[in-house]
Amino acid sequence: MAALREASRLARAASGEAVDRLPVWLMRQAGRYLPEYQALRQVHDFLTLCETPELAAEVTLQPLRRFELDAAILFSDILLPLRLLGAELAYVDGRGPQLTGLGDLSRVAFPTSDQVASELGFVGEAIRLVRRELDPATPLIGFAGAPFTLLSYLLEGGPSTDFARTKALLNQDQPAFVRLLAGLGELSYQHLALEVAAGADLVQLFDSWVGTLAPSDFTAVVAPVMTELIGRLRALGVPVIYFAPQTAGYLPTVAATGPDVVSVDWRLSISEARRLTGRPCQGNLDPAVLRDGPAGRIEREVERIVREWGPAPGLIFNLGHGVDPRTPLDHVSRLVDAVHRVRP
Amino acid sequence: MAALREASRLARAASGEAVDRLPVWLMRQAGRYLPEYQALRQVHDFLTLCETPELAAEVTLQPLRRFELDAAILFSDILLPLRLLGAELAYVDGRGPQLTGLGDLSRVAFPTSDQVASELGFVGEAIRLVRRELDPATPLIGFAGAPFTLLSYLLEGGPSTDFARTKALLNQDQPAFVRLLAGLGELSYQHLALEVAAGADLVQLFDSWVGTLAPSDFTAVVAPVMTELIGRLRALGVPVIYFAPQTAGYLPTVAATGPDVVSVDWRLSISEARRLTGRPCQGNLDPAVLRDGPAGRIEREVERIVREWGPAPGLIFNLGHGVDPRTPLDHVSRLVDAVHRVRP
Repeated sequence: MAALREASRLARAASGEAVDRLPVWLMRQAGRYLPEYQALRQVHDFLTLCETPELAAEVTLQPLRRFELDAAILFSDILLPLRLLGAELAYVDGRGPQLTGLGDLSRVAFPTSDQVASELGFVGEAIRLVRRELDPATPLIGFAGAPFTLLSYLLEGGPSTDFARTKALLNQDQPAFVRLLAGLGELSYQHLALEVAAGADLVQLFDSWVGTLAPSDFTAVVAPVMTELIGRLRALGVPVIYFAPQTAGYLPTVAATGPDVVSVDWRLSISEARRLTGRPCQGNLDPAVLRDGPAGRIEREVERIVREWGPAPGLIFNLGHGVDPRTPLDHVSRLVDAVHRVRP
Repeated sequence: MAALREASRLARAASGEAVDRLPVWLMRQAGRYLPEYQALRQVHDFLTLCETPELAAEVTLQPLRRFELDAAILFSDILLPLRLLGAELAYVDGRGPQLTGLGDLSRVAFPTSDQVASELGFVGEAIRLVRRELDPATPLIGFAGAPFTLLSYLLEGGPSTDFARTKALLNQDQPAFVRLLAGLGELSYQHLALEVAAGADLVQLFDSWVGTLAPSDFTAVVAPVMTELIGRLRALGVPVIYFAPQTAGYLPTVAATGPDVVSVDWRLSISEARRLTGRPCQGNLDPAVLRDGPAGRIEREVERIVREWGPAPGLIFNLGHGVDPRTPLDHVSRLVDAVHRVRP
């Protein structure tokens, strides 16, 4: 069965091999735009869905029952491992996740791999449950937060627009910043190693906020940690996707950290992404197009992106960011159909 | 005196001519980080400062008395002209500007040039007052919002993180979107023509939010309006600076709209900006560095940017965004000194 998944369209595209039709999956394909997910959320809060393997597995599988997606992605959250550092985590409607109770970060203790394995055991269990039900030929993507994005959440305590605390530490105490980043890199590794051991076929690192950095800071501070992390993950035998939105100004440096696939937003053409990274790319439809439509616009945008990519292998169709919760279901079907209809 | 200003370091750099030392000014150099501005704000609200020529002139001149800046920029706000479309404008601490009372935008009536001249008369008067007091050799920069950013404020009613209403109109009714954009382009033109007539030596178009667009949409929808607007402004005999942050993925297209100078953020190196635009550039220090310091970091970052630009003429030193209100005054002095010390 693992051999089937290694021959999947997603795995082939991630290796830059030719495919008979383009693979497509969507960031946040399991989640709020689905009525069956909303029904579960009426009964369980977000954290309970993440932490209960049966529920997480169910939510992971929901979009696969509706749409011909080329991969499942585990339903989980990048912030869950931060509780092992002592953070309390709450998801507040309209304000995003809130982290509290961290105290002095310079004294934070990072968990051992045994602690990660025990505290995040529910993640591995969810993956095993998904694999039991999922079509054996369909790959399952595991994911974790990339160190910079995890650190910015730790320092800001939630979403931010200016990352003032993150940048203050970077500007004023770079050694402390690098120490924390290295610790979080190890945590990301343990988190993903656990997912791979449980049956994840590929992994994606979400670095949602890294694009707030100047290229010189990315190169000096983030790139070394990412290069080591990605190298260790690839050594586990899985393809690694690095999602690094808003880094159009230094995409070659992002690519040089070594992922199999670079996942980009919609703020550059996919042809430019291909030229700048020199490797398979994932993207890059604006989620607003999927949300808004209308008839014809989704299909035209799919055709534009595929045309811009050109005939070379290595394109994984996705959005440039997660599915907007206001997205109508029929727009998702139209997108998946349009990608599968187009010649790869 | 106008001849002196045409020979200013700023004007020379904007034309790609050599200078004896690098020109530097800062977006939002007049404003909240200055105690003398805060003292005025104790007595007058933000709109009163903008609309009272004596006060706007005073605030414009304040930073020039403290720092050896190479230009003054009028104290004003890009949203003021939107009141001519019927919007009510309020500045709410912590929430940014709020626009209300617009009703159905498809029926909005754009003002005539006579209406602009009469309703924005205070802008021209402030410029005349500044010119009377400002060193005759120091250029005064006028500015306006670029059409896309004005339209996004109209549609969102204030700052936004996802520009959902803006993108909904773009996706669902592009002809209406283009009509509004063209009307706002005319409004930007009238606004800036008034500033030039009153004595502005250069003008800057602020397109703070345009980087939320995919390059294909920028090219199809925004670029034609910008190309026409910039062409008409340059025909008035003033250099035009186009501030278009977060467009690293399509900077050549931004440059192709024809500004004398492209003003970029810190998310790409200034050497990359120069390569992609092929013209004078303005930038590109992260305002967080100016805010945070510490000793040495500001100077090293100035040296890095100047070194990355290289020996060619055409660099105007600035931040990649406005001065953070939390910025200490001595950091600003250090920045200005560091820029002036470095060999151009």
